[in-house]
Amino acid sequence: MKYLLLLGFCLVMLSAKAQKTDQLNFTSANQFTLVGKSEETPNRYDRIDTNKYKGLPARVAQLLTNSAGLAISFKTNSSVIAAKWCVSKSKALAYMFPTAHKGVDLYIKNGDQWQFAGIGKVSGVCNEEILISRMGNTEKECLLYLPLYDKVEHVEIGVEKKATLSSGSDPFARRVLIYGSSIVQGTGASRPGMAYPARLSRSTGINFINLGLSGSAKMEPEVVDMVAAINADAYVLDCVPNTNPALITERTAYLVNTVRKKHPTAPIIVIQSPVRETGYWDKVLGTQVKQQNINIQQEVIKLLDKGIKDLYFITSENMLGNDHEGTTDGTHPNDLGYDRMLRHIQPQIIDILNKYNIKAAKN
Amino acid sequence: MKYLLLLGFCLVMLSAKAQKTDQLNFTSANQFTLVGKSEETPNRYDRIDTNKYKGLPARVAQLLTNSAGLAISFKTNSSVIAAKWCVSKSKALAYMFPTAHKGVDLYIKNGDQWQFAGIGKVSGVCNEEILISRMGNTEKECLLYLPLYDKVEHVEIGVEKKATLSSGSDPFARRVLIYGSSIVQGTGASRPGMAYPARLSRSTGINFINLGLSGSAKMEPEVVDMVAAINADAYVLDCVPNTNPALITERTAYLVNTVRKKHPTAPIIVIQSPVRETGYWDKVLGTQVKQQNINIQQEVIKLLDKGIKDLYFITSENMLGNDHEGTTDGTHPNDLGYDRMLRHIQPQIIDILNKYNIKAAKN
Repeated sequence: MKYLLLLGFCLVMLSAKAQKTDQLNFTSANQFTLVGKSEETPNRYDRIDTNKYKGLPARVAQLLTNSAGLAISFKTNSSVIAAKWCVSKSKALAYMFPTAHKGVDLYIKNGDQWQFAGIGKVSGVCNEEILISRMGNTEKECLLYLPLYDKVEHVEIGVEKKATLSSGSDPFARRVLIYGSSIVQGTGASRPGMAYPARLSRSTGINFINLGLSGSAKMEPEVVDMVAAINADAYVLDCVPNTNPALITERTAYLVNTVRKKHPTAPIIVIQSPVRETGYWDKVLGTQVKQQNINIQQEVIKLLDKGIKDLYFITSENMLGNDHEGTTDGTHPNDLGYDRMLRHIQPQIIDILNKYNIKAAKN
Repeated sequence: MKYLLLLGFCLVMLSAKAQKTDQLNFTSANQFTLVGKSEETPNRYDRIDTNKYKGLPARVAQLLTNSAGLAISFKTNSSVIAAKWCVSKSKALAYMFPTAHKGVDLYIKNGDQWQFAGIGKVSGVCNEEILISRMGNTEKECLLYLPLYDKVEHVEIGVEKKATLSSGSDPFARRVLIYGSSIVQGTGASRPGMAYPARLSRSTGINFINLGLSGSAKMEPEVVDMVAAINADAYVLDCVPNTNPALITERTAYLVNTVRKKHPTAPIIVIQSPVRETGYWDKVLGTQVKQQNINIQQEVIKLLDKGIKDLYFITSENMLGNDHEGTTDGTHPNDLGYDRMLRHIQPQIIDILNKYNIKAAKN
């Protein structure tokens, strides 16, 4: 028995080695549904057509070419799924998980749940990776999440030569835009599908669009005009962490009023900044984050006092838990911090959306 | 008021820029208590003196030079804490968070809790980073965790020129050795202090020693002899994931019997492998992990039947939760998966240790 098991193990290892991408057919993902887009763009995997919007800060325009929150929807009966994709030559970031920065991850529908299936690790500019293999041959609905922090090109899906492969539908209904910082974009996540807007979409069936702008969610008037120009059923404003206290006081009203003017009945949900864990020790930083959160609350109260309707506020107390282990670096939630954040904000967001009948499509 | 806040913010940013490591005094960490060691070693930040043990596989010997689980204990009243450290020239790993691979993180005692304070990001072979600044000037007990996956040299602690700096005590009592795979060593953690043995030590006050050997915890007889030679009050054997089903059947008895012979009354706790998330889809892998877990359970039952005392078994069902989001890549727990794993194993481990009066020192 012992030797049979050992033989079996060796055969498994050999078959894994033999499973190469050159035995697969690759098809451009250009023909497949792209999930999570803010709007149509000339470059398919950009988030925004930045030429349409004048005066965007250069860093914002650059971040909008990152494919954060985008996923390719396809169906296949292949027992193997692979991907090819190209990213920029930008260096690895010391503060990000490489798969989140430039890699991809795959989810497959299991019953009515989207379930993680595998990652594509990044090894250079153009990458070719088997994401999962040795599955059954039933048809599978798939979502391939693209890199959170890089510009992506030439995405292809690889399946077995005899297998079917076709575009999937967009599994998410309606549109909720989340404008925010690196916390929205997904800096501390371990892979693209773990950024919090992606997790919200999968668990609610509502289409949460990632407009996270790492370090650059500062409510500049030109960016506010762009946010307001994007059509959505609701707007989540999670842009406190990057904006200093004075600018919060200066810019919040313009942001909320501009979105309200363009979208008279859409709910607007403002979220406080998580308390930075380093801010417990770094008294200056701690005071600054407290002041940011005081100022955003004051601004929202002022707007409500002026009669702005359909405006909501989510406070951040204990958002990342109370053991101080929910971040990668004192600022960015790790996958644990994101999980706690979702337990805090998701029920509140869903309650608000329900009031406006913003719901997932029925299965 | 608006301009005062803006002025305040600008001053904060300027003072942050002005805070440079050349205004600090650096002291070699060689004179400070080193926490989490298996045994004394000629190279201070190795985990094991591999020359003492004959016939270790080359990869095992190399991994034992990684500083996984080691932390420097010191005290200071400085308002700034910095570190210098050197790692190898090995390339960044596509499957690890850079701070966990080659970086450091700092915890400071807050009341009776160890609380995260900051990280040192890796930027090259030798690194110099301010971990936290702008704190109060009271004395602080500190733990600096070293890189999980690299060999470390020349560690120095930097504090303000006028500040005190001295060695701390080892805050953890007794010794529980954890022999295991990459999951023990900490592959999916976002920083060194998030590896699960480190979290166990901080939350229980008991000294859990990280003998994680990424991909190489295969119970080879030479490695078993080394594990048994290390003195500890209890032994946790979390070595199923790297060992194929046949080898589990072949080698488990020798591992348990050898540890038992050297340590007649020490509790031995065997842990099943977490179910690999990719194994849900990859039927061959899924079957293999199930077989690993069946075989280890059979071996433990056989040993118990033969009358081995003080042997315990922890099953892995739902260890990483049931939403399939607890890994970075389908195999390695992310910080969320580790948190769930700890909720599963920690109460069971502590119950067992309590029976043997293996407890934290009183404060």
